[in-house]
Amino acid sequence: MLFTYLHLAAEERLTQELLTRKVSAVAYETVTMPNGTLPLLTPMSEVAGRLSIQAGAHCLEARNGGKGILLSGASGVPPAKVVIIGAGIVGINACHAAVGMQAQVSIIDINPSRLAYVRDIMKGSVTTIMSNRANIEQEVLGADLLIGAVLIPGARTPKIVTRDMVKSMEPGSAIVDTSVDQGGLCETTHPTTHDDPTYIAHKVVHYCVANMPGAVPRTSTYALTNSTLSYALELADQGPETAMARNRALMRGLNIYQRKIALKAVGEAFGMDYEEPRF
Amino acid sequence: MLFTYLHLAAEERLTQELLTRKVSAVAYETVTMPNGTLPLLTPMSEVAGRLSIQAGAHCLEARNGGKGILLSGASGVPPAKVVIIGAGIVGINACHAAVGMQAQVSIIDINPSRLAYVRDIMKGSVTTIMSNRANIEQEVLGADLLIGAVLIPGARTPKIVTRDMVKSMEPGSAIVDTSVDQGGLCETTHPTTHDDPTYIAHKVVHYCVANMPGAVPRTSTYALTNSTLSYALELADQGPETAMARNRALMRGLNIYQRKIALKAVGEAFGMDYEEPRF
Amino acid sequence: MLFTYLHLAAEERLTQELLTRKVSAVAYETVTMPNGTLPLLTPMSEVAGRLSIQAGAHCLEARNGGKGILLSGASGVPPAKVVIIGAGIVGINACHAAVGMQAQVSIIDINPSRLAYVRDIMKGSVTTIMSNRANIEQEVLGADLLIGAVLIPGARTPKIVTRDMVKSMEPGSAIVDTSVDQGGLCETTHPTTHDDPTYIAHKVVHYCVANMPGAVPRTSTYALTNSTLSYALELADQGPETAMARNRALMRGLNIYQRKIALKAVGEAFGMDYEEPRF
Amino acid sequence: MLFTYLHLAAEERLTQELLTRKVSAVAYETVTMPNGTLPLLTPMSEVAGRLSIQAGAHCLEARNGGKGILLSGASGVPPAKVVIIGAGIVGINACHAAVGMQAQVSIIDINPSRLAYVRDIMKGSVTTIMSNRANIEQEVLGADLLIGAVLIPGARTPKIVTRDMVKSMEPGSAIVDTSVDQGGLCETTHPTTHDDPTYIAHKVVHYCVANMPGAVPRTSTYALTNSTLSYALELADQGPETAMARNRALMRGLNIYQRKIALKAVGEAFGMDYEEPRF
Amino acid sequence: MLFTYLHLAAEERLTQELLTRKVSAVAYETVTMPNGTLPLLTPMSEVAGRLSIQAGAHCLEARNGGKGILLSGASGVPPAKVVIIGAGIVGINACHAAVGMQAQVSIIDINPSRLAYVRDIMKGSVTTIMSNRANIEQEVLGADLLIGAVLIPGARTPKIVTRDMVKSMEPGSAIVDTSVDQGGLCETTHPTTHDDPTYIAHKVVHYCVANMPGAVPRTSTYALTNSTLSYALELADQGPETAMARNRALMRGLNIYQRKIALKAVGEAFGMDYEEPRF
Amino acid sequence: MLFTYLHLAAEERLTQELLTRKVSAVAYETVTMPNGTLPLLTPMSEVAGRLSIQAGAHCLEARNGGKGILLSGASGVPPAKVVIIGAGIVGINACHAAVGMQAQVSIIDINPSRLAYVRDIMKGSVTTIMSNRANIEQEVLGADLLIGAVLIPGARTPKIVTRDMVKSMEPGSAIVDTSVDQGGLCETTHPTTHDDPTYIAHKVVHYCVANMPGAVPRTSTYALTNSTLSYALELADQGPETAMARNRALMRGLNIYQRKIALKAVGEAFGMDYEEPRF
Repeated sequence: MLFTYLHLAAEERLTQELLTRKVSAVAYETVTMPNGTLPLLTPMSEVAGRLSIQAGAHCLEARNGGKGILLSGASGVPPAKVVIIGAGIVGINACHAAVGMQAQVSIIDINPSRLAYVRDIMKGSVTTIMSNRANIEQEVLGADLLIGAVLIPGARTPKIVTRDMVKSMEPGSAIVDTSVDQGGLCETTHPTTHDDPTYIAHKVVHYCVANMPGAVPRTSTYALTNSTLSYALELADQGPETAMARNRALMRGLNIYQRKIALKAVGEAFGMDYEEPRF
Repeated sequence: MLFTYLHLAAEERLTQELLTRKVSAVAYETVTMPNGTLPLLTPMSEVAGRLSIQAGAHCLEARNGGKGILLSGASGVPPAKVVIIGAGIVGINACHAAVGMQAQVSIIDINPSRLAYVRDIMKGSVTTIMSNRANIEQEVLGADLLIGAVLIPGARTPKIVTRDMVKSMEPGSAIVDTSVDQGGLCETTHPTTHDDPTYIAHKVVHYCVANMPGAVPRTSTYALTNSTLSYALELADQGPETAMARNRALMRGLNIYQRKIALKAVGEAFGMDYEEPRF
Repeated sequence: MLFTYLHLAAEERLTQELLTRKVSAVAYETVTMPNGTLPLLTPMSEVAGRLSIQAGAHCLEARNGGKGILLSGASGVPPAKVVIIGAGIVGINACHAAVGMQAQVSIIDINPSRLAYVRDIMKGSVTTIMSNRANIEQEVLGADLLIGAVLIPGARTPKIVTRDMVKSMEPGSAIVDTSVDQGGLCETTHPTTHDDPTYIAHKVVHYCVANMPGAVPRTSTYALTNSTLSYALELADQGPETAMARNRALMRGLNIYQRKIALKAVGEAFGMDYEEPRF
Repeated sequence: MLFTYLHLAAEERLTQELLTRKVSAVAYETVTMPNGTLPLLTPMSEVAGRLSIQAGAHCLEARNGGKGILLSGASGVPPAKVVIIGAGIVGINACHAAVGMQAQVSIIDINPSRLAYVRDIMKGSVTTIMSNRANIEQEVLGADLLIGAVLIPGARTPKIVTRDMVKSMEPGSAIVDTSVDQGGLCETTHPTTHDDPTYIAHKVVHYCVANMPGAVPRTSTYALTNSTLSYALELADQGPETAMARNRALMRGLNIYQRKIALKAVGEAFGMDYEEPRF
Repeated sequence: MLFTYLHLAAEERLTQELLTRKVSAVAYETVTMPNGTLPLLTPMSEVAGRLSIQAGAHCLEARNGGKGILLSGASGVPPAKVVIIGAGIVGINACHAAVGMQAQVSIIDINPSRLAYVRDIMKGSVTTIMSNRANIEQEVLGADLLIGAVLIPGARTPKIVTRDMVKSMEPGSAIVDTSVDQGGLCETTHPTTHDDPTYIAHKVVHYCVANMPGAVPRTSTYALTNSTLSYALELADQGPETAMARNRALMRGLNIYQRKIALKAVGEAFGMDYEEPRF
Repeated sequence: MLFTYLHLAAEERLTQELLTRKVSAVAYETVTMPNGTLPLLTPMSEVAGRLSIQAGAHCLEARNGGKGILLSGASGVPPAKVVIIGAGIVGINACHAAVGMQAQVSIIDINPSRLAYVRDIMKGSVTTIMSNRANIEQEVLGADLLIGAVLIPGARTPKIVTRDMVKSMEPGSAIVDTSVDQGGLCETTHPTTHDDPTYIAHKVVHYCVANMPGAVPRTSTYALTNSTLSYALELADQGPETAMARNRALMRGLNIYQRKIALKAVGEAFGMDYEEPRF
C-alpha cells in the first residue's frame, strides 16, 4: 500500500515498476472531491505558488543571471511585470505573493468565473486575462517573470509556452515552471533540483525544480499533514477497499491496483490499458 | 477689492484691464502657506483631479471618439492604462480615482519623496515614475488616458508633452489636461468649455475645459467655501492692508495693488515691471 | 441559426417575427449553467455594472441636468450616496466601481448569503440592505445615484421602484437603469440610445440606454468573445441538436425552435404557447 | 517637582493648592514640540481614541440604555453611524477603530489638509466634513454614536455640541466625550468614573469618564512610559532648570513655578496673573 | 406550531415538556439548506460573531477583571492576541471584527478550504491554523482573548478547550464562548445572562451569555426577520405539512412532531428514540 | 572631485588614503536636507529594504541552512515572524515587503510619531514596538527573520543586537543586517559579498552583504540616478565651492576637503581632527 505523491503520468518507468509489484498505489495528487478539487494537492500547490515568486525574485538578481531588477521597483522606478499562467491554487497563491511584493501582475486563465473571483478579492491590483494563444504570446513577450501554474489532474501539462515565446522574452527575464512535475508548461522546461535549481536557455533564467515545496520542508510538512492525516487514518482503520468504497474522493486517488492501472489519465498518458476497479 | 481666482499669468488682457483700475486683486491661486502649499487652490485641485478620471473615462467611450474601452477592463480583459503627470494635489486625487476605477496607473513626478509617499499610501496599486523626457515619452506612448496635472504656482505650465508624443499615442486614446488654466501641459492643448468639452487632435480625444470644477458646482462650492471663508472674514474685518500684514499667506495672494503688478511670477510672464508692496 | 442576444421577453415584435421564420434562436442571455449562472450574460453584466457608475457620475454633472456633485465629494465635503438594487453580476461590479470612486454605497438584495459575500470581500466599505419595500423606499429617497441592477433570467424585470419613489428623490439626482433591456426596474424607465442617452423625469436624470456595453465596444467585444467562442465552436462543429443534447447549458439558451417558443419564460411573457424540445 | 498629567485649566482648586506650595509643576499635557505636537499627550490620546469606539459600542447595547444596535450592522442590516468631531490624535484613532468595526464613519475638522490626509490613508471608508455649525448640527442629528475628540492644548474645550443638538439625537444614541478632562465638548457633558461610567441625558447615553485610559492600565502605562522616560531622565539628570533651558518642549510643560502660574492658558482660564519664567 | 430557536440538544427539560404537548416544533437553528448551511442561524451567528469581539474587549478592561489592555495596542505597544476557534459564520465575523480592531488574530478550523477562503479575503491580516489538540493548546496558552465559535448543528459542542488549557492562560485573559447555547466549547463554561454576563474562573474572565444577540435587539431583530419572514409565510400560507414537503430546508428544521422527536441529533443527545416523519 | 558613496566612518584606510590626495570627497550618504532626510541615501535604502525580505526568505530555505519555512505560512500553518529594527526608509520598505509576503511583522523604533505613521498607513497589519533593550531582547528571541535597519548618518551603527540575543534565536532562523555598511547592528555581523552572501553563526543564518543593492543593479541604478542627477549637474555647472555654497544639502555631503576631514562624524569615528569649511 503506497499513499504519497506519485505523478505517474510523467513517470513511465515508475509506473512500469509499480505494475510489477503487488501494491495498491493511491496518489495524493489525484484524490478528488466531488466538486473536482484536489484536497491533497492543494497544500503543496499553495506552497509552490507562494514559493514561485520568491524563487522568481531570486532568479532576477544579477548574480543568478537575471536582469538585476527588484519585483517592487522603487520610488520613481517601475516594478517588474509578473505573468502567471493558471488561476488555480498555485496561480492564486502566486498572485497573492506577487501583488504583495508590489509587482505588476497579470493572471491568465480559461475560466471566466475564476477570473471574476480573482477580481472580487484582489480588486484592481491584478490584471486578469483570458487564456488564448494571442494573449499568451503578448503577455509572455512583456514578462519579466513568468510563472507556469497550470495543472491538469493526473495528466501531462500542455506545452502552452513555446520555445519561440521564450525567445521573445527580454534577456535576463525569468521563468518559474511549477508544472514541471507534470512535464512543464514551457517547451524549454526540464526538471532541476534544489542543489542546482536554475539554468539559462535563450538568455532566460529557468527555475524548474521538481518538488518545489522541498525548499521549505517545515512549512510543507505541516501543510501536508494537516490534510493527509484524516485520509491516512481512514485507510489504516478500515483497510483500503472499505475506505475507498466509503470515500469516493479517496477512491479517485487510486492509480494502480492489483497490477493494473486504475486511473484513466495514467493509462492514456502511456497508451496503456487501464481498469477502474469497483468496490 | 477682488478676491477670487484670477490666473493672470495666462491672461494678459485681464491683467492689463485690472492695471487700469483701482483694484486690489488677491488671487485665490497664489495665496501661499509658509510651507509652499496653496490653501485656496487645493480644494479646486482636489475636485479637478477626481473629475479628470471621470472625464477621461467618458472620452474613451466610442461615441465621444474614444477607442471604446472601460478603465477597469473586465474579467479576462486588461484594464486601460492611465498615466498621470504630476503627483501634487491634482495628481494624487486623480490617482485615487483611477486606482479606484481599477485602471492600471502610473504617476510621474520630479520629487522622489512625494513618490515615496504615494507608494506608502497606495502600496503596489500604482507605478511611480521619475519625471524625465525619456520616461515621459515612453509612458505617453503606452497611455490610453493621459492626465496633465502639473502646476507651477502663478506661472505658465511648461509644455512637457510635445506634439510628437501625442502623435505617438494610439488612435482613440484620450488626454485630460487639467493644467489648461495655466496654458496646458501638452503642445496640442487649447481651452474648451463645458458646452463643448472635447476636440480630437492627431486622433486623440482632448478634454481641456478651463475651470473644470464648474462641472460639479455644488461639490466645488462647498469645497471652496470651506477654505476661503476664514480668509474672506479676515479681509472684511481688518481691511486688506492689515489682514495681509498679519497673514503672510494672504499677502502672497496679492497680484495687483494700486495699479501695479505685485507678484513676481505675473510680472515675468509678460515681461512687465512688478513691485511687491510692504505692509 | 441565430446565436446572439435576443431579450425576447421584452420584444414581442421580434418574437413574432422569428416565429414566422425557420430559425433556431439561441439567446446568449438564457444559456444557463447547472448552478443557475448565466455564462454569456456575465461578461456584458460586468461591463454594464462598471459602466453604470461612470454613466451615473456623468449624469450628476450640472450640464447634464444633475445636481452638480462629485461621487467622491472632497476633503470636508461628503460623497454622493449611491444605491444599487441587485447584488448579482451587474450589482457587484457597480459596487466595485462606486466604492472605488469613494462614494457612500448601499447595495440591496433579497439573498442574505450573497450580501454576506459582499461583506466578506468589501469589508465595511459598503452597506448591505435586505430587499423589501420599506427599505427600498427609504434608500431611494436618500439616493443621489440609483443603479437598477436586477435581472430575472428570460423574464421582464419587476417594477420595484415606483413613480412615487422617483418623485421622492432630490431634484438633480440620477438613475441608471441597467435592467432596461428587460423592461426596466423603475416605472419611469423607458429605453434610450447612446446618441441621446438621458432624459429627465420628475427632475431626476434617467440614463436607460439599451445595450449599455455598446459604449465601450472594444472592451465588450473582448469580454464577450472570451465567453462565447467555445459555445460557438460547439454549435458549428457538432450542429445545434447534438451540441444542445450534450451541453445542457446551451440547451437552456434555446428560445425559438422550429417556429415554436422553446422557453417557458418567453411564452409566459406574452401569454403564448411554448414547448421545450427534447434532444 | 511634579511631572505628570495636571489639566489645571479645568481644575481651579488643584491650581490654587499648587500655588500655595513650593512645587515646580510640569504637566505632561502641555509639553509641546516646536511643530506644535504634544508628545506626552499623544500616547493617551491614542488610547482614548481607540477606547472611545469600544466604549461607544458598549453604550449602544440595550442593557446600558442604548438603542440595541451593533456598530457593524449585519448582512442586510445597515451599520451604525459614527460621527467623530476632531481629526487630531484622538479623532484619527477613533476613526481607525470605527472604520475597523465597519461602522459608517464621518469625521469633522477645521483643518482641510488634515482632512486630506485622512482621505489619503482611509480612502473612501470615511466621510470628511468641514467643521461649521450647520454641518455639526446635521451630523449630530443623524449620529448613532458621537465621539467628542477636540483638544485645545492647555485650555477648556469649547461647547461645540449644544444641548439642543443632543436633544435632536434619536433616543438610545450615545455620546463618548473624550474631551471631558478639559471640560467636555457637549453642553450635556459632566465627568463620570470607571465605576459608574455612563448616565442618560435627553435619552442619550453619555460616557464621559475622566481619565479614560485608566480602563486599560497596562496598555496605557506602556504607551506613556515609552514617551515620558526620556524626559524624566533629563529632568532627573540635569535638574529642572537646566533641562528646561536645553529642551524647549519640556519648558512649555511648566505650568507652575515658584508659586506663580507659568503658563498663559492656565492664567487666562481663571483670569489670574501668570509669568513665563526664563531659564 | 412553534417556529423559533429551540436548541433542544442542550435543553433536556424543554424537550421533555414539548413531547408532552401536541406541538410541531420547528427550530430555526436546524433549518438546513441542501448545501448544509443554516439560513436561520446565520443572522444570529453573524451578530454573535461581531459582538464577541466587543464583549471580549470589554472583558479585558481592568474594572471587569481583565488584564487592562486594548485590543489594538498603541504606537509602540503590541496589540492583544485574539484566538478564534471555528471559521464558520460566527468565526469569520469575529475575525472581521478582531482584524478591524487591529488585534493580532489567529483562526483555527478543521476545514483547509475554509481556511484558504479566509486567507483569500483577509490576506495576511490573520493567521490560519489547522485544528488539532497540539495547536489548540499552544494557541490558547498565548491568547489574551479566546473566542469559542464552534457549532455542530443540532448537537452539543465538544469540549475542545479543557480546564487545564484555561489554567494555562495568563491571569486577566478573557474567554467569550459563543457556543454556550449548545453547551459551550470550554470545560469552564457555564451560561450567564446579560444582567450578569461575566464570571472569573482560574483568573480568566468568562463571558458566556446565552442568547448573545439579545444585547443588540434592534440589529438582531432586523437581521433575523430578513431571513425568517419568507419561511414563516410559507408555513402560514400552506400549512406545516405542505410547506415542509415542498421545502426540504424547512423540513430539516422539524425537531418534534406529533409527540415524537423528529431529529436524529436531538434523539442521540438524550439517548431517546426519534423518527423522521415523511411528508 | 569624488561624488559617490564613501561610508568613511566605517573605512579608516580609505579615509587615510583620501586625506593624502588633493580630492574633494562628497559622500552621497551624508548629503542632508534641512529636515534631516538624506536624499541620496534614500533610493538605496528603499532598495535595500525591499531586498532584505527577499534575501531573508531565501535564507530561511532549507538548503541555505534555514529552518525551511515560508514567510507566508500556508492555510492552517502560521506565517514566519519578521522583526524589523528601525522604521526609517530601510525599515518601512522592509515592512511593506514583509507585510506583502503575509509574514507576521513587528517593527521597532525609538520615535513614537514615526510608529504612529506606520500604524496610519499599515493599519493593523504590523505590530509597532518601542525600542528599548527589554523589547528588543524579547522580539529577537521570537524572530524567524530579523532585519537590521538602523542608520545613524555618517556614524557607526550601535551594536543593538548582542551575541547573546542571537544565541537565543531558534536554530535555522535568519538575520539580514542592512546596516553592515556602517558596521552592522549585531555583534555577530561581518560583511559578506554577493558571491558568498551568507554564513552561519550560532546556528543562525546571517546575510550581511555590503552594498546589497548591487544584487539588482538595474533597479538600483535607475533609482539612484533619479536622485543624483540634479546634484551632479549643479556640481558640474557651478563648480563644487559655488554649488555647495548655494545648496546646503550638498554642503553637508562634503567629507574631505583640501586634505582635511570636513565632517564631524567622520572625525569623531577615528578620533581625528576635522574642520567644517565655510563657503
